[in-house]
Amino acid sequence: MRLKGTRLSIVTMFCVLLLGGAYTAPALAADAKGAPKYVFVFIGDGTSFPQRNAAEFYKASRHAKQDLGPATLRAQGKISKSTGITDFKPATERLLMNTFPSQGVSTTYSYNALITDSSSSGTAIATGKKTRDGVVGMDPEGKEKYVSMAKMAKAKGRAVGIVTSVSIDHATPASFYASQPSRSQFYEIACQIPDTKFDYFAGGGFRQPTGAKKDKKDLYGILAESGYTVVKDKAGFASLAKGKGKAIAINPILDKSHAMPYAMDKGADEISLAEFVGKGIELLDGPKGFFMMVEGGKIDWACHANDAMAAINDVLAFDDAVAVAYEFYKKHPKETLIVVTGDHETGGMTMGFAGTRYDTFMDIISKQKGSYLTFDKIIDKLRKDKPEATLEDAMPAVTDFFGLRLYSAEQLAELKKKAAEGDAEAVAALKFALQPYEVENLRKALAMTLVPKDKRPRNEDTYYLAYGSYEPFSVTLTHILNNKAGIGWTTYAHSGLPTPVSAVGVGHEKFTGNYDNTDIFKKVVSIARY
Amino acid sequence: MRLKGTRLSIVTMFCVLLLGGAYTAPALAADAKGAPKYVFVFIGDGTSFPQRNAAEFYKASRHAKQDLGPATLRAQGKISKSTGITDFKPATERLLMNTFPSQGVSTTYSYNALITDSSSSGTAIATGKKTRDGVVGMDPEGKEKYVSMAKMAKAKGRAVGIVTSVSIDHATPASFYASQPSRSQFYEIACQIPDTKFDYFAGGGFRQPTGAKKDKKDLYGILAESGYTVVKDKAGFASLAKGKGKAIAINPILDKSHAMPYAMDKGADEISLAEFVGKGIELLDGPKGFFMMVEGGKIDWACHANDAMAAINDVLAFDDAVAVAYEFYKKHPKETLIVVTGDHETGGMTMGFAGTRYDTFMDIISKQKGSYLTFDKIIDKLRKDKPEATLEDAMPAVTDFFGLRLYSAEQLAELKKKAAEGDAEAVAALKFALQPYEVENLRKALAMTLVPKDKRPRNEDTYYLAYGSYEPFSVTLTHILNNKAGIGWTTYAHSGLPTPVSAVGVGHEKFTGNYDNTDIFKKVVSIARY
Repeated sequence: MRLKGTRLSIVTMFCVLLLGGAYTAPALAADAKGAPKYVFVFIGDGTSFPQRNAAEFYKASRHAKQDLGPATLRAQGKISKSTGITDFKPATERLLMNTFPSQGVSTTYSYNALITDSSSSGTAIATGKKTRDGVVGMDPEGKEKYVSMAKMAKAKGRAVGIVTSVSIDHATPASFYASQPSRSQFYEIACQIPDTKFDYFAGGGFRQPTGAKKDKKDLYGILAESGYTVVKDKAGFASLAKGKGKAIAINPILDKSHAMPYAMDKGADEISLAEFVGKGIELLDGPKGFFMMVEGGKIDWACHANDAMAAINDVLAFDDAVAVAYEFYKKHPKETLIVVTGDHETGGMTMGFAGTRYDTFMDIISKQKGSYLTFDKIIDKLRKDKPEATLEDAMPAVTDFFGLRLYSAEQLAELKKKAAEGDAEAVAALKFALQPYEVENLRKALAMTLVPKDKRPRNEDTYYLAYGSYEPFSVTLTHILNNKAGIGWTTYAHSGLPTPVSAVGVGHEKFTGNYDNTDIFKKVVSIARY
Repeated sequence: MRLKGTRLSIVTMFCVLLLGGAYTAPALAADAKGAPKYVFVFIGDGTSFPQRNAAEFYKASRHAKQDLGPATLRAQGKISKSTGITDFKPATERLLMNTFPSQGVSTTYSYNALITDSSSSGTAIATGKKTRDGVVGMDPEGKEKYVSMAKMAKAKGRAVGIVTSVSIDHATPASFYASQPSRSQFYEIACQIPDTKFDYFAGGGFRQPTGAKKDKKDLYGILAESGYTVVKDKAGFASLAKGKGKAIAINPILDKSHAMPYAMDKGADEISLAEFVGKGIELLDGPKGFFMMVEGGKIDWACHANDAMAAINDVLAFDDAVAVAYEFYKKHPKETLIVVTGDHETGGMTMGFAGTRYDTFMDIISKQKGSYLTFDKIIDKLRKDKPEATLEDAMPAVTDFFGLRLYSAEQLAELKKKAAEGDAEAVAALKFALQPYEVENLRKALAMTLVPKDKRPRNEDTYYLAYGSYEPFSVTLTHILNNKAGIGWTTYAHSGLPTPVSAVGVGHEKFTGNYDNTDIFKKVVSIARY
């Protein structure tokens, strides 16, 4: 039901209240027609409860002190429960998105599977319809085109922006503007941009500007012909201004997948996801309002790689981007709706690991200097310089990058003895000390990393379970570091966990409850009257 | 803010609506005083989003058909995404609790740790105050007694019931009626029952009826003197009737921890959690209304043991118990509030596992005939009968109980060849075939299970990571079976994941949002006017 008038009898109001979650506020709280002028849909790719949980644990314990004496006792099996931390701030160090007044839960299954991929979940959120994994914005057979909320917003005269930290032609953003039978058709997806007449695309670049076989007409030429200004540096980004026409803003630095680098690897010359959102607001704002989709796409990639610190930093960058929208909402509270969700969980991430029982040690991952991809480059160099490198050869880089240290059996025994006696320095050092079984795993992983990629036993179950499709040495190091911090992973793919849906602004109340990801579309278009 | 009157100006109503989540309906929707007469608080111990997710995946795919041809191709590395299932029903096969109109999210950290235990989280939900792990219903130093919502309900004249599938003196139920510095003081906890004057306790039994040292006055005598009728069989349970005074109903069969057996091990002579709730309603209903706390305690225990099938069956039994309350709510919709939450997550459970990529095979776990505890008994017998048993000796029991089969290298190669050729029987058999690395793990685990418990290297990291505190052979089997089904685990302890809070009835709207577990207390007592 929807309340269209502003004059309502007290009896009507009572009926509405008695129906509970069924009432809708937009008619009362927005413009003359009851619809918010400004709609933001944020999608954290691979971002469900565990990823938000990890980021909040990290924030909460940044300044915490671990009660390390008992930690040693527990390590010795003398106590089993948590050793306790002090000065941690879980009550106040929250993610902004988690403080929104309405918090719902969304199921994510696709047309053909309980565990979805990003194209079918992106399509479900964008169009309200299920499709087969791999399909973008079309029916399961790849024949019928679905219509996205972004296209519906455009049809209603709203300006439209699409922002992502991965390439603009990737599954999630593509679901909002393209229709292709396969998410891998990057060129064909990007070529659908001109037809959308959307006003602003930003973040990563394009994976196949001249097609998969590099034999197609240059995408940038097509975009220019269609009136898009494409900027690829900070000066160009700064020069983008309202009234100058449609724009595509690409981060000055891209990784080999044409995505923005991980937030924790971000350099001074780069543009943040938050800045791309800010620019979007600047360009899109106008009398007809706007719709903006913002994807935190690299949270998913970091979780595929089982790198918690990279994932957490990208969740925080995503929350910073949400904060830019929230500042806008505070200026236009009766005209704005912000919805923040995730398309699925990635990694089977858990804040809890068998080896650390009831403890978490966020200070351990905070030592990590960059993402696994940055460490991959260090190892590439080592492999070239020293093809027969031993773990001892690699350890200086490992210690510098992850804080982990290798000790001899005698040194380790001495360290444990001192720690058990209460020596604070030994207790602190022990947290980063590689244990014998970890050393064994690292030696195996390094040996495998030194094997040329085409000669590795990649089809063996045990190889995949240990390393997935990642550099064996790097992924073994993030596993060890994460496990020591109390963080577990169960997969290099997605899991079936539902995702949170956080909402603030006009109609936010509609987002409570436990519903399907296709309902996110239905709620948004109902509230926004698309 | 609370709306106490029934006559409100339209302007006031607008203000309330604009505040969104801050408005409260109870004053408008319940009895003369605005408070619900009947309040149910259900706590799934160790039950967070993953446990609900697992139960729904199981329900959704009970009748599904897996597209097995592609599964084989994927196993061969020829395709990477989900193989797809048909006839699965995720849209309709929902848990009742997940369909409640308000769904919130609750943080669970304790006074001293990000990962809580059940006594501190039980205390937080029951009393609205944080405490140290291990403490029940008291401040972190174990000096000041906290007052629970159950005691406040009693003080307001409500009848009170406490129902649990574990022992009545266990941490979660104890948090609602006792105050002790340690959750291990089972006798002292139970001895606080008479003072509560609560009307109904039901489910499991008591762990220390004569104290930890068996030197105290018999608890049953104390309870009888205080006017409690204690029944321990079905006839006694049936005889309990309204007006016959306070009652304690214990399931006829208890495990060695004095808890009800796992739901999947339930015999015909037993009483279900749902039946205990039904009896509670019968006994407690009256003009003054009632408060009932119901714990699904063994979900947690099954997850500690990393046994998905046992956990899922207990989640379903818990949901059945919720359904009994829901039937009551439907008869008294304006006088009833039902809140269903969990105290924390256990096991780091994920519906997704590296080895199965994007697939889940719920049909694999459905072969399991009983909980790990039931299998432990089978292995106990094997150990006695044949102390030098080999894996081949144990396999008949393994195949019968879990469906898993052992093949020679030649047989396995033949099976894989046939499956790759599309032989349906071979494809089906391959799902249950133990792979070489699984066989290796099973041989090691069986060897360890045959070592007397006091001679196992239980303090070694690798021992604990592989087996926790469980029977090595049994836990390795549930790991293998669960992993083959696409289910992962990261810990034998709890994780820090927030928990869902599902609500229906008077004031349910208050339960949307993302808040702390102490807020559950605050919301319940505010709505119920305790």
